[in-house]
Amino acid sequence: METIVPKISVFPTGEENTAYAKYFSGKSWNAPLTSNKDLNVPMNNITFEPGCRNNWHKHTGGQILIAVGGAGYYQERGKQAVHMEPGTVIEIAPNVEHWHGAAPASWFSHIGIACNSQTNENIWLEPVTDEEYTEATRQ
Amino acid sequence: METIVPKISVFPTGEENTAYAKYFSGKSWNAPLTSNKDLNVPMNNITFEPGCRNNWHKHTGGQILIAVGGAGYYQERGKQAVHMEPGTVIEIAPNVEHWHGAAPASWFSHIGIACNSQTNENIWLEPVTDEEYTEATRQ
Repeated sequence: METIVPKISVFPTGEENTAYAKYFSGKSWNAPLTSNKDLNVPMNNITFEPGCRNNWHKHTGGQILIAVGGAGYYQERGKQAVHMEPGTVIEIAPNVEHWHGAAPASWFSHIGIACNSQTNENIWLEPVTDEEYTEATRQ
Repeated sequence: METIVPKISVFPTGEENTAYAKYFSGKSWNAPLTSNKDLNVPMNNITFEPGCRNNWHKHTGGQILIAVGGAGYYQERGKQAVHMEPGTVIEIAPNVEHWHGAAPASWFSHIGIACNSQTNENIWLEPVTDEEYTEATRQ
């Protein structure tokens, strides 16, 4: 059954993010916003259905998130989750374990910017359990 | 006389951009959105008063612009200006001469992302004349 994605930001939604589905709990969509490889700053708009989040993971080069629609969360391992809404900017330092995704009852879109992209690697870890997600988003 | 800046985006407006005023025709404001230098992707929200634009210039590392509020223009030397509104993303290749700024009758905010920041230099050229600006924004 095809999901109808609501329009929650001024940026494109793109296609269902099947390539990364194995690293996500729930459905997500990916719209590349840039294409010039000489710039070395790849930028994508990622949209999460309510409750969807990615696995715990880290980026050897770091990442920047810019919330642009709906409501979501960002959590670093061992810390309280941070609520994200349009205008929230999160700087994720290299090698910091974290996850991000939608709030339980809201769609969410953020722009994701790969940092130090010439050398960056994404290292995917275990899923965020329902218990971890519920606890993180309880506030 | 202090200018009252309207709230045109979800991002902060910051302080009047006096450091770069000599490269701008009109008043602008600058809000840094990131601070972690390990990421090598400096990101600022720049706000232009109506009619304000920066000089012709180029970046040796390139730049990405994300329009987030109001209405503005981007023009590469020798090409038609491009209208920018929230959601417009512009990739500026290294060493391409260009300018950007507000529409004549609208405030404008864009996020500016420095690319290849470890080596990037900004090279400032002559102001965009009133004739060039009027012609570019006539459409």
